[in-house]
Amino acid sequence: MSAATTTSTKGRVLLAYSGGLDTSCILAWLIEQGYEVMCYMANVGQEEDFDAAVIKAKGCGATKVFVEDLQREFVEELIYPAVQANTIYEGVYLLGTSLARPVIARRQVRFELAYYALKPDIKVIAPWRVPEFYERFAGRKDLLAFAEEKNIPVVQTAAKPWSTDENLFHISYEAGILEDPDVTPPKDMWKLTVDPEDAPNTPERITIEFTQGKPTKVINTTHGNKEVTGGLEIFLYLNQLARQNGIGRLDIVENRFIGIKSRGCYETPAGTILRVAHMDLEGLTLDRQVRNLRDQFVTPQYSNILYNGMYFSPEAEFLLSSIAASQKTVNGEVRLKLYKGNVIVEGRSSKTNNLYDMEESSMDVQGGFSPLDSEGFIKIQSIRLKKWGLNQKFV
Amino acid sequence: MSAATTTSTKGRVLLAYSGGLDTSCILAWLIEQGYEVMCYMANVGQEEDFDAAVIKAKGCGATKVFVEDLQREFVEELIYPAVQANTIYEGVYLLGTSLARPVIARRQVRFELAYYALKPDIKVIAPWRVPEFYERFAGRKDLLAFAEEKNIPVVQTAAKPWSTDENLFHISYEAGILEDPDVTPPKDMWKLTVDPEDAPNTPERITIEFTQGKPTKVINTTHGNKEVTGGLEIFLYLNQLARQNGIGRLDIVENRFIGIKSRGCYETPAGTILRVAHMDLEGLTLDRQVRNLRDQFVTPQYSNILYNGMYFSPEAEFLLSSIAASQKTVNGEVRLKLYKGNVIVEGRSSKTNNLYDMEESSMDVQGGFSPLDSEGFIKIQSIRLKKWGLNQKFV
Amino acid sequence: MSAATTTSTKGRVLLAYSGGLDTSCILAWLIEQGYEVMCYMANVGQEEDFDAAVIKAKGCGATKVFVEDLQREFVEELIYPAVQANTIYEGVYLLGTSLARPVIARRQVRFELAYYALKPDIKVIAPWRVPEFYERFAGRKDLLAFAEEKNIPVVQTAAKPWSTDENLFHISYEAGILEDPDVTPPKDMWKLTVDPEDAPNTPERITIEFTQGKPTKVINTTHGNKEVTGGLEIFLYLNQLARQNGIGRLDIVENRFIGIKSRGCYETPAGTILRVAHMDLEGLTLDRQVRNLRDQFVTPQYSNILYNGMYFSPEAEFLLSSIAASQKTVNGEVRLKLYKGNVIVEGRSSKTNNLYDMEESSMDVQGGFSPLDSEGFIKIQSIRLKKWGLNQKFV
Amino acid sequence: MSAATTTSTKGRVLLAYSGGLDTSCILAWLIEQGYEVMCYMANVGQEEDFDAAVIKAKGCGATKVFVEDLQREFVEELIYPAVQANTIYEGVYLLGTSLARPVIARRQVRFELAYYALKPDIKVIAPWRVPEFYERFAGRKDLLAFAEEKNIPVVQTAAKPWSTDENLFHISYEAGILEDPDVTPPKDMWKLTVDPEDAPNTPERITIEFTQGKPTKVINTTHGNKEVTGGLEIFLYLNQLARQNGIGRLDIVENRFIGIKSRGCYETPAGTILRVAHMDLEGLTLDRQVRNLRDQFVTPQYSNILYNGMYFSPEAEFLLSSIAASQKTVNGEVRLKLYKGNVIVEGRSSKTNNLYDMEESSMDVQGGFSPLDSEGFIKIQSIRLKKWGLNQKFV
Repeated sequence: MSAATTTSTKGRVLLAYSGGLDTSCILAWLIEQGYEVMCYMANVGQEEDFDAAVIKAKGCGATKVFVEDLQREFVEELIYPAVQANTIYEGVYLLGTSLARPVIARRQVRFELAYYALKPDIKVIAPWRVPEFYERFAGRKDLLAFAEEKNIPVVQTAAKPWSTDENLFHISYEAGILEDPDVTPPKDMWKLTVDPEDAPNTPERITIEFTQGKPTKVINTTHGNKEVTGGLEIFLYLNQLARQNGIGRLDIVENRFIGIKSRGCYETPAGTILRVAHMDLEGLTLDRQVRNLRDQFVTPQYSNILYNGMYFSPEAEFLLSSIAASQKTVNGEVRLKLYKGNVIVEGRSSKTNNLYDMEESSMDVQGGFSPLDSEGFIKIQSIRLKKWGLNQKFV
Repeated sequence: MSAATTTSTKGRVLLAYSGGLDTSCILAWLIEQGYEVMCYMANVGQEEDFDAAVIKAKGCGATKVFVEDLQREFVEELIYPAVQANTIYEGVYLLGTSLARPVIARRQVRFELAYYALKPDIKVIAPWRVPEFYERFAGRKDLLAFAEEKNIPVVQTAAKPWSTDENLFHISYEAGILEDPDVTPPKDMWKLTVDPEDAPNTPERITIEFTQGKPTKVINTTHGNKEVTGGLEIFLYLNQLARQNGIGRLDIVENRFIGIKSRGCYETPAGTILRVAHMDLEGLTLDRQVRNLRDQFVTPQYSNILYNGMYFSPEAEFLLSSIAASQKTVNGEVRLKLYKGNVIVEGRSSKTNNLYDMEESSMDVQGGFSPLDSEGFIKIQSIRLKKWGLNQKFV
Repeated sequence: MSAATTTSTKGRVLLAYSGGLDTSCILAWLIEQGYEVMCYMANVGQEEDFDAAVIKAKGCGATKVFVEDLQREFVEELIYPAVQANTIYEGVYLLGTSLARPVIARRQVRFELAYYALKPDIKVIAPWRVPEFYERFAGRKDLLAFAEEKNIPVVQTAAKPWSTDENLFHISYEAGILEDPDVTPPKDMWKLTVDPEDAPNTPERITIEFTQGKPTKVINTTHGNKEVTGGLEIFLYLNQLARQNGIGRLDIVENRFIGIKSRGCYETPAGTILRVAHMDLEGLTLDRQVRNLRDQFVTPQYSNILYNGMYFSPEAEFLLSSIAASQKTVNGEVRLKLYKGNVIVEGRSSKTNNLYDMEESSMDVQGGFSPLDSEGFIKIQSIRLKKWGLNQKFV
Repeated sequence: MSAATTTSTKGRVLLAYSGGLDTSCILAWLIEQGYEVMCYMANVGQEEDFDAAVIKAKGCGATKVFVEDLQREFVEELIYPAVQANTIYEGVYLLGTSLARPVIARRQVRFELAYYALKPDIKVIAPWRVPEFYERFAGRKDLLAFAEEKNIPVVQTAAKPWSTDENLFHISYEAGILEDPDVTPPKDMWKLTVDPEDAPNTPERITIEFTQGKPTKVINTTHGNKEVTGGLEIFLYLNQLARQNGIGRLDIVENRFIGIKSRGCYETPAGTILRVAHMDLEGLTLDRQVRNLRDQFVTPQYSNILYNGMYFSPEAEFLLSSIAASQKTVNGEVRLKLYKGNVIVEGRSSKTNNLYDMEESSMDVQGGFSPLDSEGFIKIQSIRLKKWGLNQKFV
């Protein structure tokens, strides 16, 4: 995506630049079309040599390259609300690409506005939807040929026959050999996490503390009770532990927004740990009915909204207010064991929460209600069922 | 639960007998109260010495003991529809106790009807809700004392300070030392599965074939392509593999029907494998919108219905018809790797299904629609958002 | 309901007194049981001679009678949030009894606390659930006999063979001759509204102004542009107009919380007008997706919560925050014609809202998107359907 | 919409012809473009002089005109399932245009297939999306000019400044002077129903019998117990009665599929009566939980699917199976009074249904459960709320 301005031959363009084949070709092509191009690179935690990318962009003809670190904003404003909501798409995918998109889009707009002054009706050039561009570049082959012609260095080789999208939350792999959903991804594809089979034979134990559903501290009880605090710092530390212990791999066929089925592989290290821990703590600290309403109405809808790229919408704003409202009581600690791909809950506690009552859930002592109460409860529940049962033949 | 009849002093009673402390005491107490007691034992796959239990029941005074094998019915009529629906409670619990209950209840009624003739208004004695019983037996201690008095052999000892409920789908552990949700279950509690840390260092690979969402074949590609067919046989075989590989452990705090929070630990070996495999195959074979409707409306509702003991209800009947309707296209095979607690999908395929289209999901070739179509799609999607955005300040 | 205290023989009791047969008998019975009884009457707009009721209560032996006007609180804190949410039970019933209950319960508790000092563990005596009471008074007949014995004046006569519950939002009729769901309610049963057949032959026109989904002004354009403002005043004025024009009658069979079906007749005059007007204004001013999410997830759940008496619950609190969040843009005016039972919308407008765009919705001018955009939109929508259609035979 | 074939200069085209300005111009334009045009007119109950339309089409140059009566199919296959599901869009619109569309589309395809032989990849020409067409005809003015040039008789005059779409279920009015949502529709716009103010002063009483949620008989008890049976016949008779009594008008602002808000006026005579009657009978005959599940999950989803033109989709097929499953017990009769725009329920009964129990819903006799049961029911319900309440300050 690139935003056209009006001060050059054809104007000045701000290009969201990734350093990869696609945006490098777009950069060269825009210059060929007569635009002045400035590049904007968002650092959302992808493992990238930003210095090299700046050199590459300038080599392709960019007049300026801006790199901005959005990692903390990404973690605190997009990822943690998603952890609070237990967002998940089609029961399995943790939405890593979708979560990064709004941060990049918002900052890109802010950046441009700051540079050129307030401009409400920004015009977007999407080269993949411009006939001159997409008719010339029908596929990867054409891009590779153009890159060679323009002396654009290409990292992507035949050895990595797939596409990736990376940020600090996840990396995705798709296309190429992965298009056959029955082809097992090669062992060397997975970049972030070690293979569970190669992970340490000794488990690692940690405690995660949550405040209103967001992680506020991690303690590594295996390694000297090392403590980590700070939104971004916690996330990066959990990423490190999860990657070492082979946690967060996923291989699925998913349904794209436009209705096409597509195969994708993902690594989501810290996100996988946080999901397990947060859901466990909700068991201890969240009211049953609030959880039930949130699970049925907020989680799937908010997940779909993210997946469909509708983060900037009235419906997302509406649901985000519900997410916050649901997390007031989600305070406490979860103790976890990380071992060869597994995230195993070993215990949980909450100092401020009194919804769990050891006495009451005990089977040794009658807590709060007598057996006669159960009798009444069941009898009234069954009035409707008895009537219905008279017309049925189960036996 | 026991059903009273009217041919003895106080009548004849059919007792659903488990062989454990509770029902053995109830048996002895019913006899003490003047009833003739016949015992009914349902074999739902719990690891139990049924011969010993028969001897024990007769030793307590039962005039007859009937043992019935319900394993196939349990797997085919309760478990597999739950697999089709991806039923899960509060995002984690696979409902093992809830699934067995309807099979036992239905057979018990059928059995009794067959024995005594048709009896529509069956009267149920629930000793735990009869004052004479529950006032005498306020807790486990009183039961143990009564057992000693009546010479009832007690397996449960101080060495196992928790309660269990077992069937071929799962075993649950609760109460006792588990009441403190921050106490890690002792290593020797887990009965069905090996500890992931002790599971084999070499993974095992299997292929599961599904027909309309139900498993119809398992092939073990690691061990000589051993094939297993038959509903019950497949389930028992998957149980064996999962148990060897440390698959299916769970430790949670859940919300009971009556609103109390309770800590439970579970092992659900085969159920855990089948859930992963079935959901993966749905990615390949189920329409996006049908999946979405089923996920939001059928799965959570049916899971709640099972958990709340409402299987015999018009709402369950209503939802079961939807579950079947959703699974027509869920046909194909999933290839899995089982390794130290992990169930890893390595590939999936479907001969009869054409919703996935390699060409179309490819990024090299434009499939089915042109970039201009995307432009129009996005432009129309954005009409509403632009209007809304004019009133917002994101930047 | 009555709350026992501990300063008399058996203690002092605060009785929620209605002036009717039931609570008068309970009052007399509590005194007979040895309690000192003080009465609390909540004025929620029922058409009642409160002075006469005070005399009656004292005549029955009450030591004090407190009457409190809760009308404004009822309208502003319970009714208007329900208007905002379009609450409705089973598609027809506007929840009049359910809405009044929380106001009365909350005030009764506040009142008592203020009188005797802070008392967290209030004990509730519910005579209908106390064996000594309910065994003595099995039905209406026994109450009538007791009333005669105690010289309690009884308004209810054979001429009104049904029960009512009234407040400023509605009146309900049930039981007696209404128990046969095929008996048409007699013309003289309906108390609040004139029969539509007897309503004026000339319609009345009004304009209702809403601010964030709550009514803030009514103008009667038929009668000299009379203006009414103020939450309670608006509601009472709409009640008057609706009653004159035969608006708000309902006759249904509903499903009670406990699962029993029950026939009820209702008059909800102002509530019926406000529902029509509010839903109409949302058409003009509320975003499509927010409306859709609210309609599916908030409205039915909040309606059920109210019906089931769960207003004081975490789930109600959770949903109420959503209701407020949904109404920010619901500002504007609706013009209505009231005529013989009909509430007819004649127009609506909003000065602050720009979601409706005359240009855009015009068929004469292409607004915001070209026909080619439609083509792309439809083409992408249809990818999934074409694939599915290949396997179907519609023709 | 018109489907191109390949046997003429530019081929032969089958045009879905309405007789109105738009399709007459399209017809003339297609001929101008070199196509041979055959016309297909679907009779879905619109009040149309089909003979005159045939003459008009031939006058415009059509080589053949086929008129097909789809009324019965429309009523029985589209309308009655919608009645069963209580379909409604945004709480008010009964979906008349959406319901007719699938019948016309399906028949048109069938018709063409029958005529030319099986043709799976039918190509659709949508003139409004073809640049040559839409650039020439930017609005109504251009169409009128073209009509004059081609001697196409135009019924539409300045006196009717709006568009309509009509079938036996409804008529819609939009555009023109209606684009201002605050303009009251002129009295002479409404075509199907008399103004409630002009409707008879004497009400009309009817009884509608339903079988599994579909109307199977109507008896007019006011006029000599006239009986009508047969799906189409019942619908047409109810239309007649509703139109005479001013029933079924609606004036709304709705949200279009593409996100635009649009003002529409509608008359849906019989549909309005059937909705009231069917929902009332469900009160008597449908289980509470089935109704609740259906209301939350099936009705809104199916209504949206219809509105969005997704009738031929896997999700519609999925939901339709649920609709049928929900209606098994919806059998019985509803007695209605029709009066000046009002549909008033006067009673309902069901011979085959036993969910309603007069005894049980009586307040004179305790039915099925004792007050102590209520006590237990409430006590258990309140365990969760008490815990939560300890942390709240309501008072």
